[in-house]
Amino acid sequence: MSNKKILILPGDYIGPEIMAEAVKVLELLRDEGEAIEWSFGHLGGAAYDAEGHPYPESTQKAARAADAILLGAVGGPKYDELPREVRPERGLLGIRKDLGLFANLRPALAFDELAGASSLKREVIEGLDILILRELTGDIYFGQPRGRRTTADGHAEGFDTMHYSAPEIERIARVAFEAARKRSKRVCSVDKENVLETSRLWREVVIQVARDYPDVELTHMYVDNAAMQLVRRPKQFDVIVTGNIFGDILSDEASMLCGSIGLLPSASLDVHNKGMYEPIHGSAPDIAGQGRANPIATILSVGMMFKYTFDRGDIAERIDAAVKQVIRDGKRTGDIAAAGEAVIGTREMGDAIVAAL
Amino acid sequence: MSNKKILILPGDYIGPEIMAEAVKVLELLRDEGEAIEWSFGHLGGAAYDAEGHPYPESTQKAARAADAILLGAVGGPKYDELPREVRPERGLLGIRKDLGLFANLRPALAFDELAGASSLKREVIEGLDILILRELTGDIYFGQPRGRRTTADGHAEGFDTMHYSAPEIERIARVAFEAARKRSKRVCSVDKENVLETSRLWREVVIQVARDYPDVELTHMYVDNAAMQLVRRPKQFDVIVTGNIFGDILSDEASMLCGSIGLLPSASLDVHNKGMYEPIHGSAPDIAGQGRANPIATILSVGMMFKYTFDRGDIAERIDAAVKQVIRDGKRTGDIAAAGEAVIGTREMGDAIVAAL
Ligand SMILES: CC(C)[C@H](C(=O)O)[C@@H](O)C(=O)O
Ligand SMILES: CC(C)[C@H](C(=O)O)[C@@H](O)C(=O)O
Repeated sequence: MSNKKILILPGDYIGPEIMAEAVKVLELLRDEGEAIEWSFGHLGGAAYDAEGHPYPESTQKAARAADAILLGAVGGPKYDELPREVRPERGLLGIRKDLGLFANLRPALAFDELAGASSLKREVIEGLDILILRELTGDIYFGQPRGRRTTADGHAEGFDTMHYSAPEIERIARVAFEAARKRSKRVCSVDKENVLETSRLWREVVIQVARDYPDVELTHMYVDNAAMQLVRRPKQFDVIVTGNIFGDILSDEASMLCGSIGLLPSASLDVHNKGMYEPIHGSAPDIAGQGRANPIATILSVGMMFKYTFDRGDIAERIDAAVKQVIRDGKRTGDIAAAGEAVIGTREMGDAIVAAL
Repeated sequence: MSNKKILILPGDYIGPEIMAEAVKVLELLRDEGEAIEWSFGHLGGAAYDAEGHPYPESTQKAARAADAILLGAVGGPKYDELPREVRPERGLLGIRKDLGLFANLRPALAFDELAGASSLKREVIEGLDILILRELTGDIYFGQPRGRRTTADGHAEGFDTMHYSAPEIERIARVAFEAARKRSKRVCSVDKENVLETSRLWREVVIQVARDYPDVELTHMYVDNAAMQLVRRPKQFDVIVTGNIFGDILSDEASMLCGSIGLLPSASLDVHNKGMYEPIHGSAPDIAGQGRANPIATILSVGMMFKYTFDRGDIAERIDAAVKQVIRDGKRTGDIAAAGEAVIGTREMGDAIVAAL
């Protein structure tokens, strides 16, 4: 059997720093005998700098050929003034759409040792373990028509189209129910069915899919209420499934509940479980180049890659355990340190995790 | 001068109970000599029961003739199975659009005595005072086309149109800047400019309007980041201005930060400051008919009515002060009582506030 091919896209600002630590984990696993190999490419601002486009052909080719992709973080002030079509986020949207990465898995997990870093009370988040499933290749992100026009009376108007087809909804719903089966068997589908036609269809299709999963409990919640309930009583949720724009908002909100956004990985999967894996946090321009960034979310993204694309849940568990270990040992990068706690750098954190592995 | 005319729409479930207490406040003010009068009408489920439509002609006429409207809460399980066109929320959307109530003001205010009821840490919310300005008559709520169709290959599709015109954006932006002038002089405009064409226009127009308010600081934030920042560090905000759907989500999230959703009023204004005033909370079917609902948000809505429509900020301040007084005195309805605290009913709370006035 040939090696599994991983394409590594470090991205911008702290991207290369955190990626260097994730590569140490890959090296360890390869040295242990795992049949993996990797190459590097550009996405986002780095790709624009190198090749004039945030998702250049070279990356497209490599991404299509790869079995899995590991992404650092893209974007930052250096690229804010670029024309819209070549801004870093276009690269991100481009690769998602190009590879059909429709299922975005975003766990929101509390590390009880770090509850102090949350703005929520300890008892509200202790033990929190939510999985948000965000549809990633449809909705108002890609719906047509979209644009600008001038009305008869001379005013500018902007417009976008929210849109879902039944098959698009069905496939993300199935991912949600399958995931729930391996967890607490509860799916909460979030929509705005009392206002939107798209949401009406969404809800109908989800209800239909649910018939194939009689062992999983399905509830529905309006998106405004979901935004409230995530703050009020986040532990009521197991799996949340929702569309692209609502998922964008709710998954970011959820990731902040634990106060440890530097620790949360994510996966974006296609229909064959080929996936792109990346930390939830951004490129952190303010601390770039200083060796202070937290590599944990990127390393946990490696774990998700082994679990979902390589079907090696055992390795994912080892990586999760190693991370928990170093946290229990009191290792802290600046973002997760409480006042007075000793702070270590990106490299020390990476080395500590590799040692724990 | 003739009396100011208030149309009272108690609505469904706890609606009539909380409204009865607000009426006591109106009675007191009238007895003191304020030139106000009121009449009652139906909206939502109650209107459907009485007249077969959630926003019937009788209410339309009365609402157009009134100077201000006081609304309880609409909706509930009794009406969930009704055809979509006559569900209670259609009444709500109908009256907003019909009266041109484009500016929805939703304060999120911490009552420091009640910080215990919040899921957030005391220091995160103590002193919190945000004003969320949500555009209420445009966006994907009303954009055309919307509906359902079948694709060439036989699949169902649902779609909706997000839409804003420059004048719609300009008028809500002006309300935001004017409001900020009377507060801490900071406006944060929330959009998804990196993805949506509608948001691009939104941002351009807001920047243009800002030129007329050089004394007010303008910042921009993506909606996903705003959903995070509201949890992380809510006190960074003064005035937030955003579109209808983002505002729906963020204002509900914000109202939950203080854990006192039973205390938050709201106003929806037209271009002449005619307004509809209502508590932020829903119709609470679970406690309806038991005299347990908290009337404070409805009474504070009366205060907002005097401030914004009748230009009597002095009366609003009196009402606010009376509410603070009873809270300081330890009066608690069930929703805001900590474990072990004595609980009073809807009527006792109303009477206590009237007494404090
Ligand atoms: C950068 C932006 C286009 C992107 C999105 O909205 O999907 C980001 O917010 C995310 O969630 O990955
Ligand atoms: C009931 C619903 C249509 C309404 C809305 O989405 O505007 C409600 O959520 C609100 O915020 O007043």
